Amino acid sequence: MKKLGKQTLQLDNKPSILNTAAIVGPKELNGPLAKYFDKCVEDEFWGEASWEKAESKFIKETVSTVLGKANVSSSDIDYVFAGDLLNQCISSSFGMRDTNIPFFGLFGACSTFVEGLCLGSVFIDSGACKNVLCATSSHFCSAEKQFRFPLELGNQRTPTSQWTVTGSGAVVLGKSDTGPYITHITPGKIVDLGIKDANNMGAAMAPAALSTLCAHLEDTGRSPDYYDAIITGDLGYLGKDILIDIAKTKGYDIASIYNDCGVLIFDKKKQDTHSGGSGCACIATVFSGYLYKMMKENNIKKLLLIATGALTNATTSQQGESIPGIAHAVAIEM
Amino acid sequence: MKKLGKQTLQLDNKPSILNTAAIVGPKELNGPLAKYFDKCVEDEFWGEASWEKAESKFIKETVSTVLGKANVSSSDIDYVFAGDLLNQCISSSFGMRDTNIPFFGLFGACSTFVEGLCLGSVFIDSGACKNVLCATSSHFCSAEKQFRFPLELGNQRTPTSQWTVTGSGAVVLGKSDTGPYITHITPGKIVDLGIKDANNMGAAMAPAALSTLCAHLEDTGRSPDYYDAIITGDLGYLGKDILIDIAKTKGYDIASIYNDCGVLIFDKKKQDTHSGGSGCACIATVFSGYLYKMMKENNIKKLLLIATGALTNATTSQQGESIPGIAHAVAIEM
Repeated sequence: MKKLGKQTLQLDNKPSILNTAAIVGPKELNGPLAKYFDKCVEDEFWGEASWEKAESKFIKETVSTVLGKANVSSSDIDYVFAGDLLNQCISSSFGMRDTNIPFFGLFGACSTFVEGLCLGSVFIDSGACKNVLCATSSHFCSAEKQFRFPLELGNQRTPTSQWTVTGSGAVVLGKSDTGPYITHITPGKIVDLGIKDANNMGAAMAPAALSTLCAHLEDTGRSPDYYDAIITGDLGYLGKDILIDIAKTKGYDIASIYNDCGVLIFDKKKQDTHSGGSGCACIATVFSGYLYKMMKENNIKKLLLIATGALTNATTSQQGESIPGIAHAVAIEM
Repeated sequence: MKKLGKQTLQLDNKPSILNTAAIVGPKELNGPLAKYFDKCVEDEFWGEASWEKAESKFIKETVSTVLGKANVSSSDIDYVFAGDLLNQCISSSFGMRDTNIPFFGLFGACSTFVEGLCLGSVFIDSGACKNVLCATSSHFCSAEKQFRFPLELGNQRTPTSQWTVTGSGAVVLGKSDTGPYITHITPGKIVDLGIKDANNMGAAMAPAALSTLCAHLEDTGRSPDYYDAIITGDLGYLGKDILIDIAKTKGYDIASIYNDCGVLIFDKKKQDTHSGGSGCACIATVFSGYLYKMMKENNIKKLLLIATGALTNATTSQQGESIPGIAHAVAIEM
């Protein structure tokens, strides 16, 4: 492992992504990426008594699925890195409590999936252990209930609002002769440019995405076109446009190779999600379901994956605070 | 770095604890450890408009203090590992947003401080970077408001309840010729024996402390008396007694060398805290203020520090869920 510049770690023993799994909900079932997911559940409760319990089931079943696909038992996983958006990250802790795997709970808002990949990669690369598991979840209904309004209120959503992805994505990292490999990690700094609109997370998070993108490119000496694709987590339509614009001010033209998981997961015309998808599961499911398969099929050979998070909550919004953003990046290469 | 047994990592390049800082509130000012803290604040608001903002100030000022004591600038810190109890960990993210240091947000409930030490140690030991900072905070008033009842209600506390420590503790890890050194980490598994009383966290967390204690001793081949002191985070009086009892069932008699930060930080007779202290800041301030100095003065040469957390929230309690516990341990030696 070697520190490059201010933020990036170059991984010399390249952790391999042994396998991935993604399970999603009904909205995602009707989206353009449905065929890439391991399972699409038609009932947002998934037979549970509450949305919180349903979200826990998503992460539990996804973890079970990825262990099966990677052909490793839970006792072969040294450590798990997991988190979610619910207060006190209960989806992860309740979802993982029966696994009997040492557990690192994370909170990076919607950046948690790549935060886990960063930490897990360091554990694998350093030789500390053989296999780690990274997982996150989110759920439209539990997120609306907690962060905005009860769904029963039928509240009108603002044009800049995003639709929290219901689902979970999980990966197993380890050593293998086949890729894709995580080659670099660039953990992000907290960036707060003063956005206060809790229904415009894309605008709040785009500067953090830019900060981490610039740090990664400067630290590695790469230009954006080194990558076949640069993919952010959940900036949505608005945040995507903002990032393209503000990247230009730094001299980077990323428009041709850049996209956002929040843009990819739902159909803009047929599905009424306004500014696209969001949530911890947005990048987790799009990477684990779609992008990983694209890499395995060599349609994408070099991917820069940047997960963005808004480090805020309902209390801080009510107290007039702005919304700090953060973005963590990993370079993944075949 | 070397994996020992199922859970423990032995650190060969022993990260040194370069320095520590602890700032606490008025209840702690009147407790028996007051003289060990860097600062005791008499006003729980600390001049801020809300308890949440005050808690952010505690972590911000504590981080500033530890950087000064360690004589490193924030630009010399490669990564920070921080978390707290508030929803979406806002104390840490708002408290750290101006530091300009790449940020890993953690949630391990009251185990977060040692979770950070575990992760930070791996980063230092692997040579990934030179210095990391680990910090956590909690605040009695913001915690009561969020987890239990508004303080204005004047609600009567149950006999088994604990008093959330107001304050923050922070450490800088790096390389040094002087200790104390972190020699082993034992990240914990989630343990849930079915305790459902949200006012009896000590009982819910004690089995997790036992699980991690046993894993650490088995993995390292050590007996409890290898250590001068075994200290848990916030089991309180009740949880401490439970841990001593259930450790006996595993063949470990720890009574003579074991204590709990929740027992140490408040005066049982003079301060009406019922079962003692709790919160992310309990072990963070007692270690950073008191135990670190005891080690520097060679009063404790070998310390096993076990932070315990209850991975629960108000929603899960209302939904009839039990309280999963977790405990992370680090061995610290001169």
